[in-house]
Amino acid sequence: MLLLTKLNLVMSQVKAYAALSNDADLIPHKIERRNTKENDVKIEIDFCGVCHSDIHQVRNDWKNSKYPVVPGHEIIGRVTEIGSKVTKFKVGDLVGVGCLVDSCKECNSCKEDLEQYCENGAILTYNGKDKDLGGHTFGGYSEQVTVREDFVLKVPENIDTKAAAPLLCAGITTWSPLREWNVKKGDKVGVIGLGGLGHMGIKFAHALGAEVIMITTSPEKATDAKSLGADDVLISKDNTQMQEHTASFDFLLNTIPVGHDINPYLGLLKRDGTMVLVGAIEPIDPVHGGALVMGRKRVAGSMIGGIKETQEMLDFCGAHNIVSDVEMIDIQNINTAFDRVVKSDVKYRFVIDMKSLKEV
Amino acid sequence: MLLLTKLNLVMSQVKAYAALSNDADLIPHKIERRNTKENDVKIEIDFCGVCHSDIHQVRNDWKNSKYPVVPGHEIIGRVTEIGSKVTKFKVGDLVGVGCLVDSCKECNSCKEDLEQYCENGAILTYNGKDKDLGGHTFGGYSEQVTVREDFVLKVPENIDTKAAAPLLCAGITTWSPLREWNVKKGDKVGVIGLGGLGHMGIKFAHALGAEVIMITTSPEKATDAKSLGADDVLISKDNTQMQEHTASFDFLLNTIPVGHDINPYLGLLKRDGTMVLVGAIEPIDPVHGGALVMGRKRVAGSMIGGIKETQEMLDFCGAHNIVSDVEMIDIQNINTAFDRVVKSDVKYRFVIDMKSLKEV
Repeated sequence: MLLLTKLNLVMSQVKAYAALSNDADLIPHKIERRNTKENDVKIEIDFCGVCHSDIHQVRNDWKNSKYPVVPGHEIIGRVTEIGSKVTKFKVGDLVGVGCLVDSCKECNSCKEDLEQYCENGAILTYNGKDKDLGGHTFGGYSEQVTVREDFVLKVPENIDTKAAAPLLCAGITTWSPLREWNVKKGDKVGVIGLGGLGHMGIKFAHALGAEVIMITTSPEKATDAKSLGADDVLISKDNTQMQEHTASFDFLLNTIPVGHDINPYLGLLKRDGTMVLVGAIEPIDPVHGGALVMGRKRVAGSMIGGIKETQEMLDFCGAHNIVSDVEMIDIQNINTAFDRVVKSDVKYRFVIDMKSLKEV
Repeated sequence: MLLLTKLNLVMSQVKAYAALSNDADLIPHKIERRNTKENDVKIEIDFCGVCHSDIHQVRNDWKNSKYPVVPGHEIIGRVTEIGSKVTKFKVGDLVGVGCLVDSCKECNSCKEDLEQYCENGAILTYNGKDKDLGGHTFGGYSEQVTVREDFVLKVPENIDTKAAAPLLCAGITTWSPLREWNVKKGDKVGVIGLGGLGHMGIKFAHALGAEVIMITTSPEKATDAKSLGADDVLISKDNTQMQEHTASFDFLLNTIPVGHDINPYLGLLKRDGTMVLVGAIEPIDPVHGGALVMGRKRVAGSMIGGIKETQEMLDFCGAHNIVSDVEMIDIQNINTAFDRVVKSDVKYRFVIDMKSLKEV
């Protein structure tokens, strides 16, 4: 029995791409994956999206990186093996893995299907604590991954598989606040910032029936925004335009990924309107208390989404044929892609074709 | 008929105390009040609370003062005359007037009984636009006031009348967010700052059945806070205490009247917890976006309350025998009282006995 347990923990080595330090390029690197436990699903990775967080972690911008860093939390693949107690998946299923691979499942947040806020600390897909092998978790820039079935998502077969990868992070990050704050038909919704998050925010708000206004500093983004589903574009540097939209928005989804001045946007909200921050996890400029008090306005934050909600989003995407706009790359080009993401030079998400890893 | 209309607009002169410029003391001053129109209630003022806003307006801190300023929006008095179409009041009724004396009654906010957010601009009790006499409105540091009946409140006869005055501003300002955010039995509520607003916040949150923690920088306020209804006191300068209360509050009522750093308080909120600002109508220090994102937390503002909600609060106060803690003064001492309010040297609200104005 002891022998079996030990055997069960035998690991297999798989190919991956990793950063070995904060100033190094990603290079081919062998990592270990646990063998499939009774509640596990083993997945061969077909595609993995490139999230800005991947770069932050590789470069240790948040001062919590552990090396080697194998990034990637927008994973799409096929089930190749299931544990003896797995009930929701079978070999061959098209599945996804997002930012989380485990959580306590016992705290209030977990019981409410909000594993991302697990009070005992959700296990992130990479750079999280690896309870099985020790050390830290490795993400999707890899041949395969083994994940507790409760954290594996079913991906609709009818949508463009490769373009579905960013749904697992950029998608759920924008979907969750739109649902939490009950954005619905007839609402006037502003999406601030047109990048990986913003372009999904436009698609979802549009699909939910809202009047969607893309809010950007860049007039040249207007055509794209409208093709993504925006009804109109508001150039935030144009005071006349900002004035015309004063106190008219029910909801603002703020995807700007850095600290900035939110006061002008608060002026766009109606009474009882809400702005949700999903990008800026750093200090924002001083908010004028009066900008909140005068119209009972709200500023809130939101972080990715729970597993149940992520599944609902994927099902919605299947029903409405929603995927991300992506640019495909081979894993060999990941370092160039990182540089381009930092320059916002991508429409709107890089996705790695993981077949390319076989040639490494 | 023209003659009658003109007669109807004839004004009467009444005694008041006014500031004639931003650096002047308040002095006795005659003001004009309109005659009672068909929907008006004429009120002889018995008591008027002293709100910090009175001082801001007198001193033109908000750069919108019009002189002479007759402050006062925590008015308690008796009806002495009613217009021909008044149905809700009769001569002799004990009534109150708060921060608002009129609004359009047609916009969405007014239709939702939120006249304080009237989209066409609610008329403030003083320093508002006087639609009848021209110029601007005069507040309750005065013998009498004439107000549209829709903006007059019934005051329960069983509570201490003089101590009821601050309910009209300090009371409703704290009551409204507690109700809007559904504070209830079993919730853990923090009241930040123990002044005119904070002491009412403690009383209301306690009466609503919440566990109330007074949050203050001043350990010497603990005894008072507990006698007002706080279950415990959290000294915000004490890191150990702050740590013990991390992520434990459902709701925070922030009554601090100046810009400050709210980040430490955000750490006290549970997931999905809300902090409402009611005092700081100036820039607050930079908020860390992550402090909102990591637990889906919310910061909101709230401004006084609507007339219907104010009546509900007064009825609640009648049922639960809640009034403010007050220090009575004569109008002749108003300038000294102002200086003491600025130094937070009052427990917890000055109320002017307006009988003293008769001797002027």
